[in-house]
Amino acid sequence: MIRTYKQKNKKTKESPTNTKKINKKRTAKTNKVFEKGKLRVTVVGGAEEVGRNMTMIEYEDDIMIIDMGLQFPEEDMPGIDYIIPNISYLEDKIDRVKGVVITHGHMDHIGGVPHIIGKIGNPPIYTGKLTAGLVAKRCEEHKGCPKLNIVEIDSKKKARVGKNFNVEFLRVNHSIQDSFAVIIHTPVGTVVHTGDFKIDYSPVNDKPADLNRIALLGDKGVLLMMSDSTDSTHPGYQISESTIGEEIDGLLDDIKGRVIIGTFASQLSRLQKLFELAAKHGRRINLQGRSMTTNVEIAHKIGYLKFNPRIIVEDKELGRLPDDKIMILGTGAQGESNAFLVRVVNGEHRSIHMKKGDTVIFSSSVIPGNERSIQALKDQVVRQGAKIIHYQMMDVHAGGHAKAEDLKLMMRLIKPEFFVPIEGNHYLLQAHAELAEQVGIPKEKIFVPDNGQVIKFEKKGRNTSGTMTNEKIPSDYVMVDGLGVGDVYNIVLRDRRVMAEDGMIVIIATIDTKTTNTIGNPDIISRGFVYMKENKKLIEDTRMKVKKIVNDHDSKTPDDDYIKNKIRNEVGKFLFAKTKRRPMVLPVVIKV
Amino acid sequence: MIRTYKQKNKKTKESPTNTKKINKKRTAKTNKVFEKGKLRVTVVGGAEEVGRNMTMIEYEDDIMIIDMGLQFPEEDMPGIDYIIPNISYLEDKIDRVKGVVITHGHMDHIGGVPHIIGKIGNPPIYTGKLTAGLVAKRCEEHKGCPKLNIVEIDSKKKARVGKNFNVEFLRVNHSIQDSFAVIIHTPVGTVVHTGDFKIDYSPVNDKPADLNRIALLGDKGVLLMMSDSTDSTHPGYQISESTIGEEIDGLLDDIKGRVIIGTFASQLSRLQKLFELAAKHGRRINLQGRSMTTNVEIAHKIGYLKFNPRIIVEDKELGRLPDDKIMILGTGAQGESNAFLVRVVNGEHRSIHMKKGDTVIFSSSVIPGNERSIQALKDQVVRQGAKIIHYQMMDVHAGGHAKAEDLKLMMRLIKPEFFVPIEGNHYLLQAHAELAEQVGIPKEKIFVPDNGQVIKFEKKGRNTSGTMTNEKIPSDYVMVDGLGVGDVYNIVLRDRRVMAEDGMIVIIATIDTKTTNTIGNPDIISRGFVYMKENKKLIEDTRMKVKKIVNDHDSKTPDDDYIKNKIRNEVGKFLFAKTKRRPMVLPVVIKV
Repeated sequence: MIRTYKQKNKKTKESPTNTKKINKKRTAKTNKVFEKGKLRVTVVGGAEEVGRNMTMIEYEDDIMIIDMGLQFPEEDMPGIDYIIPNISYLEDKIDRVKGVVITHGHMDHIGGVPHIIGKIGNPPIYTGKLTAGLVAKRCEEHKGCPKLNIVEIDSKKKARVGKNFNVEFLRVNHSIQDSFAVIIHTPVGTVVHTGDFKIDYSPVNDKPADLNRIALLGDKGVLLMMSDSTDSTHPGYQISESTIGEEIDGLLDDIKGRVIIGTFASQLSRLQKLFELAAKHGRRINLQGRSMTTNVEIAHKIGYLKFNPRIIVEDKELGRLPDDKIMILGTGAQGESNAFLVRVVNGEHRSIHMKKGDTVIFSSSVIPGNERSIQALKDQVVRQGAKIIHYQMMDVHAGGHAKAEDLKLMMRLIKPEFFVPIEGNHYLLQAHAELAEQVGIPKEKIFVPDNGQVIKFEKKGRNTSGTMTNEKIPSDYVMVDGLGVGDVYNIVLRDRRVMAEDGMIVIIATIDTKTTNTIGNPDIISRGFVYMKENKKLIEDTRMKVKKIVNDHDSKTPDDDYIKNKIRNEVGKFLFAKTKRRPMVLPVVIKV
Repeated sequence: MIRTYKQKNKKTKESPTNTKKINKKRTAKTNKVFEKGKLRVTVVGGAEEVGRNMTMIEYEDDIMIIDMGLQFPEEDMPGIDYIIPNISYLEDKIDRVKGVVITHGHMDHIGGVPHIIGKIGNPPIYTGKLTAGLVAKRCEEHKGCPKLNIVEIDSKKKARVGKNFNVEFLRVNHSIQDSFAVIIHTPVGTVVHTGDFKIDYSPVNDKPADLNRIALLGDKGVLLMMSDSTDSTHPGYQISESTIGEEIDGLLDDIKGRVIIGTFASQLSRLQKLFELAAKHGRRINLQGRSMTTNVEIAHKIGYLKFNPRIIVEDKELGRLPDDKIMILGTGAQGESNAFLVRVVNGEHRSIHMKKGDTVIFSSSVIPGNERSIQALKDQVVRQGAKIIHYQMMDVHAGGHAKAEDLKLMMRLIKPEFFVPIEGNHYLLQAHAELAEQVGIPKEKIFVPDNGQVIKFEKKGRNTSGTMTNEKIPSDYVMVDGLGVGDVYNIVLRDRRVMAEDGMIVIIATIDTKTTNTIGNPDIISRGFVYMKENKKLIEDTRMKVKKIVNDHDSKTPDDDYIKNKIRNEVGKFLFAKTKRRPMVLPVVIKV
């Protein structure tokens, strides 16, 4: 079920390139100015947790959005596929949304696009070439995603979004190419949003971040900097992606059998290095996992991933190659249940089986929450005779995010007047705020917002005031479960949790309307509570209990709800006393 | 429900100290010899995962057990409290069980005692003084735990267990005092079981491990060594507990407000150091959390935790002390939902509230699976204005387990002929086995068993043969859920998982026996599937679907099972098509 938002579902026939025209058309529709002279900045998602990143910049009648990510569910959200940013605030402001900038192609920045973009009037999306390909692909896979209006950008291009935003893009380094920081010149001042970044003086197959331009920007004066807090609690500097290359290169010298590398399909810089190393070591590459093949295809087509296509080897040819000529690149290093690595060790892969002599390299850090699945995966790999090399044993991983010293460097260069840490749990934002204080930004000009908390800036004579207000726009979870978007509420989740914990028991009492007594014995169905076959006495006792509850009434006919509540309470207590478990009790009363 | 094992529930009136008499009585009962001349060694629990450690040594008619731990449930076992070792193998061999040795007082070594000991005839338990206190306490808290026969041991004592085992105890270091390795002299040779250990030349309030005695033992010849694999994948040496002391000492110099330290109540060495540091820095100690107060009380009473009782300050006196005179020691550093730290940040603690100026030190490493709860806890702490010091930021944690180089040292000293790594996932055991090869133990004399896999040793002339057999004794999970032990089977768990994922829907169709058509509309109850109030149409459509399924039959009266299956399948398909969710469908047919 798709929860329908009140929205004008107008069909946009706008040409994706002619953005000026689009903007004109959009602005023409509104006629009274919203919060005159005020710049409103709101982190809609990504201020209290990792994922579903979305930032909103508003000035009068123009709204610009940066990123539309998705977040993976917490442990207490069983059955939920993922969480996307809440756009209720925009429901009656669709005409004001003038553009969306996507900083880079990772899921926590693009994943919400197919669900959201149609509901906010399909505004133009400004993004890099690679990201454009990835967003388009994701949109294709989702029913209901409209034809996107993508405007490709790079560090030389500028864009005017609405009447009030002049936007520039600044190349930064990350674990995927075409990662950009966004510079928004507004009537109140310049806002810099870093996107995800690391500082890498020698990135793989990517240009280093333009530190000079960043410094020049800082010299001209920046009102507000919003910056990536992912690694703010890690001291020191992030290591360069080139270093990783060296490590894996060294490893490959010594490995005789097949090499199977588990990594993220989205870490395209890593993939580029692996292609180069395979060529160097005379190994051919076999790709595994849908996202791996898709991403490689998209990136190769636009020239972002460079390799001789002949290096690729299909599954059916693998058997003809000697083991030491094979490198398999696959997904599933986090132990994800349907990904390549897990299917191989479970014997579910149609052509690849793990064997003695194989070496499996886990080339990605462990995402919190995945430790146990990864441990189980490793057990299986070892049982099947393969060797494991993990980053704990040798550093085969460089993160994509700036660490404490890198973050300080960025703040020193940009020299913002105000600072807002984004993208991380509150604890990470706070740690980032402390770093900001260390480089001399005054405490009162550093805001650590919650999701949805509006920050306002306004010119006051020569100065600009900035305030973190108490205004909160809706920012609670919008959960996607199957076809449903936002239709799983806390009550549904709570029921799932209760049933997961102690199961449930349905009690069906058929009552004779004349005598108001039960007809026959009540039916009992239990699932996830106790094993019924081994607990016949308990079930029988419960049956008798119910019979007594129903028949034990005064002459007046009690109503159904009264009987149901009585069954629920008394059977609940009875079962808890017997088992110390609290199954959900569902009474059904049928009157005949 | 307690699953009953076939067992003689004889009342033991044996005196716990007179072990010779007990053994005589036990051995007298059996008269035919089991597997003559063979030493059987089986890791019942702890060979494939972490927790529920239990090892069984058998020689003819004598069985000796080492440890009886509990394991915390995996993520796919909703509602389960914990898992204990499987003792089905012992059901008909109770008279042969001559004694249990508990190596130390951690839950993964003592937690199964209250559930198991009564079922195996309440044999004597040989263990250190502190462990004795902790086991007795745990037994007190469990209904059905018999009066234990505890025999206190130390490194000078020897014990004869059954006719065939002469047992000695060797002090090792760990994060709790009274940790012992067990040396079992059997007719086939000497077995050494290390228990959990680390090598610490300067332990806190504990004697260092007796390396000389270990070396002498090695010189006399050891048949088999079984050793702790917890940290086998970590290179280098474990750091000394004294080092930790220095770090925290340094921290305390700079902290002005209250210090709140979250740590494991079972890490008594750490607690000792904290008491000393509090005294040194003029802070009084407030204890929080039930296990914290209990453990401190037990350890203090027997003189294992040394402090002036006046250092303790009760909750009600806290308000009268200046903040810089307070150190609070509490549980919950893993984000456990009912523990002290979580209750404080949630405002559920009756007297303690987090405030600006507090410093919270997390003095324990993160247990895999707890990352997200810890992250949420930290967010709350920071929101309430307190500062956090965690081991990622400064090393305030030393592990209790030997790392790779320590493990090699132990093997070099003991020089066993055969080696069996225990206590860890298969991957960790395999890594430990590789270390054993590195120190020269031949590959064919290293066995990496699965849980329950029997390893046999036998004298053959001057030599001793050792084989890892294919015999597997029952070792599958015994799950404890509420009062039930071993009564939650896979089918119950599977149902819990299904309902957690997509909820369930109960369909009640009342059928007229004469017409075989439905009477009225079918009733539908759904929980955890969709929010019924917002999905009236879907529910109505389902109702009509069911009506059609029931009424759409030929003249013959179809039986209930046929109708139920048809409802289950067709409604399942219908709901999946509409929602892409697969709730559990429970059809109920009532005939009137």
